[in-house]
Amino acid sequence: MNQNLFHDLMEDFDTHFTKDGVNGERVARRLAEIATIGLTDEGGSRRIGFSEEEKKAKKLVKSWMEASGLDVREDGAGNVFGRLQGQRNDLPAILCGSHVDTVPNGGHFDGVLGVVSALEVIDSWKEQGYTPLRPYEVVVFSDEEGSRFHSGMTGSHAMLGDIDMETQKGLTDINGLSFEEVINDYGSTVSDFEQAQRNMNEVAHFVEVHIEQGKELEKADLPVGIVSGIAGPVCLEMTFYGEAGHAGNTPMTERKDPLFAASELIQKVHALPSQVSDTAVATVGKMHVSPNGVNVIPGEVTLYVDIRDIVVESRDQLVDLIREQARSIVQNSGVELDIHNNLDVAPVPIKEVNQSLLKKSISNQGIEPMVMPSGAGHDAMPVGHHVPVSMLFVRSKDGISHNPKEWSSLNDCVQGIHVLKDYVERLMDE
Amino acid sequence: MNQNLFHDLMEDFDTHFTKDGVNGERVARRLAEIATIGLTDEGGSRRIGFSEEEKKAKKLVKSWMEASGLDVREDGAGNVFGRLQGQRNDLPAILCGSHVDTVPNGGHFDGVLGVVSALEVIDSWKEQGYTPLRPYEVVVFSDEEGSRFHSGMTGSHAMLGDIDMETQKGLTDINGLSFEEVINDYGSTVSDFEQAQRNMNEVAHFVEVHIEQGKELEKADLPVGIVSGIAGPVCLEMTFYGEAGHAGNTPMTERKDPLFAASELIQKVHALPSQVSDTAVATVGKMHVSPNGVNVIPGEVTLYVDIRDIVVESRDQLVDLIREQARSIVQNSGVELDIHNNLDVAPVPIKEVNQSLLKKSISNQGIEPMVMPSGAGHDAMPVGHHVPVSMLFVRSKDGISHNPKEWSSLNDCVQGIHVLKDYVERLMDE
Repeated sequence: MNQNLFHDLMEDFDTHFTKDGVNGERVARRLAEIATIGLTDEGGSRRIGFSEEEKKAKKLVKSWMEASGLDVREDGAGNVFGRLQGQRNDLPAILCGSHVDTVPNGGHFDGVLGVVSALEVIDSWKEQGYTPLRPYEVVVFSDEEGSRFHSGMTGSHAMLGDIDMETQKGLTDINGLSFEEVINDYGSTVSDFEQAQRNMNEVAHFVEVHIEQGKELEKADLPVGIVSGIAGPVCLEMTFYGEAGHAGNTPMTERKDPLFAASELIQKVHALPSQVSDTAVATVGKMHVSPNGVNVIPGEVTLYVDIRDIVVESRDQLVDLIREQARSIVQNSGVELDIHNNLDVAPVPIKEVNQSLLKKSISNQGIEPMVMPSGAGHDAMPVGHHVPVSMLFVRSKDGISHNPKEWSSLNDCVQGIHVLKDYVERLMDE
Repeated sequence: MNQNLFHDLMEDFDTHFTKDGVNGERVARRLAEIATIGLTDEGGSRRIGFSEEEKKAKKLVKSWMEASGLDVREDGAGNVFGRLQGQRNDLPAILCGSHVDTVPNGGHFDGVLGVVSALEVIDSWKEQGYTPLRPYEVVVFSDEEGSRFHSGMTGSHAMLGDIDMETQKGLTDINGLSFEEVINDYGSTVSDFEQAQRNMNEVAHFVEVHIEQGKELEKADLPVGIVSGIAGPVCLEMTFYGEAGHAGNTPMTERKDPLFAASELIQKVHALPSQVSDTAVATVGKMHVSPNGVNVIPGEVTLYVDIRDIVVESRDQLVDLIREQARSIVQNSGVELDIHNNLDVAPVPIKEVNQSLLKKSISNQGIEPMVMPSGAGHDAMPVGHHVPVSMLFVRSKDGISHNPKEWSSLNDCVQGIHVLKDYVERLMDE
């Protein structure tokens, strides 16, 4: 067990939150046990997808599942399922969980909290002698962060059969290994990976608890929040082609400066989201200037525009506005423009009925229900393209994530579990 | 001899320009002979400062100087001087020349044309039996391009005693060699390099013929042009510090985006030069975005603003305007700004009296005199900080330079030599 983490979690824990079968100390212990696997010098976690560390973390989760009497299985993509039979096993199950892989120097809450929370619900039921109507499955998805292949949500995509296997087989991991080598080293095969696809009629709903990785809950002074939708990103790669020239010898009026054009677009990218919705965001995070010399007018600038919203209509409206602006900027400027759509993931709006139900569960804990979008992708996003999903956010200190400093207080985590338990019980009767 | 270059030069040469002792074929042959030294696979030149190739090119020039009866000497910085005694050798000399080093894959005219032109004036005088009043020296400066140490104009600076030797001795060249190792390999010593400093009272004026490296003469359909001044560059390094964050999880209103601030500055940098003068230019050619991830709001952006004008007052006014704009952009934005002045070279305005004299020489050749700034630095810039200088530009095809495609027609080159000859003769009597 990571004694430091356990100590820090327990230090200001309000033991009144240990009630109704939910045990704060058990939650802290489990978080601290997983945190020993892939502990980095900076005190963070390194559990890359399909690594020995991710495998070890799943093994630990499986041991908890078995101790809780669940039927445990692992599919060919390394997704782990722990099933609690319900009163009526002919009904589709409620699936609940997240992932245990991390970015190369991540924290101890991203993903893990969702898995530990899903398990805690079962242990609380055991203590209370509650048997749900439907089957309930705790899931650990593989390689959510995508640090292995510069991708993301590999396990959930595999379960959904959403993966183009030719593309997948062509991937090379961070160590130069092919996908086949990686999956074989992991102890599976390409064919078993492909057979991870599940009949999603077996699943009624997927719930994911996740740290917010933002500051909205902290600002509102609330432990948890309801996710109104998961923003699907579009990534536009825009290349502006101008004319390189000597910074001294080219009069201002003679320039075809692609960086000047690109900078105008960056201004627009910042201003346009509010025109389409309150939840839309657009970002230029990456750009390349060529030849990138102090005294050379650039010849070529490539930038990437990440555009997100939780509703596809406003998201696509924003994409169109940004494309139009880019075209209008280069018009008559002598600068040429190429736009490629590198990524287009449909947003997942969360049903009003589920948001309302989750509001009830939050109010039930005496917490003001706050609704917010998820700008980042989670396993609930691909799953949400197949079955209804819900997400509950837990407050992140300073909004920091993918970093050893990632922190959510045990009070917030355990309050999240109480909400989750109440919500899953309500879903059982839906 | 580089037969291709010789053939291309001679192909459309108008032999009427071979007159008054100036010989177009000799000029073409000399350009083609130097072009064999350091010829690249792409047909360009690679004669890095202080390399074997630069040395070989200087040796060739020295053989021409000796054949023309000049007193030849090389100083400890590798600068070559070929002196023709005048009628009155107590008078300060007229210095004329340029350099024979190139960028790693440069052309056959940048620098070389200035040296060959200066020599051709002597050979024409010999044919015409003309002895100038003052001494006349053809000079080949070392390492003008600065490709060796990422610097520039090493030879002319050494002649002027403008070099801080401690800094110079701390330089490491492109191959990882120290300055001392390089200068020793070249056949000199650090002490001899230092003693290259010349008493500039011996020099009345420096004239440099150079290719334009721009398109102004081509647009005006003129073979040559008068340089009104050499723009001195200021380079501002600006770092914008914001707050990195997830592109999906940070609402637009919560961002401290340094790239948004930087892009506004790039807009201003483009707009402001025309407010101070017709000749001022400002360029953002280089920038770094950190961490430069598609889905990460940048935390830090560094950009470099290159600011030039031929008059120090308007140049400095532009520097101030750009600094003020940068500060005003970040005000109340949550973005912090650091500005460093990496370079500040005083511009060299060219005296009206010299511009007028050069106009007469150009008109004398039946060419419309056109006046233009030099945005790029040349040996005439440091020299111009000590003695009066003049520059004559020769038309560059498509403005291309520092490239194997660099081209000036032999007609333009030879017309330039006629102008130079006439101008130097006028200077002799000044």
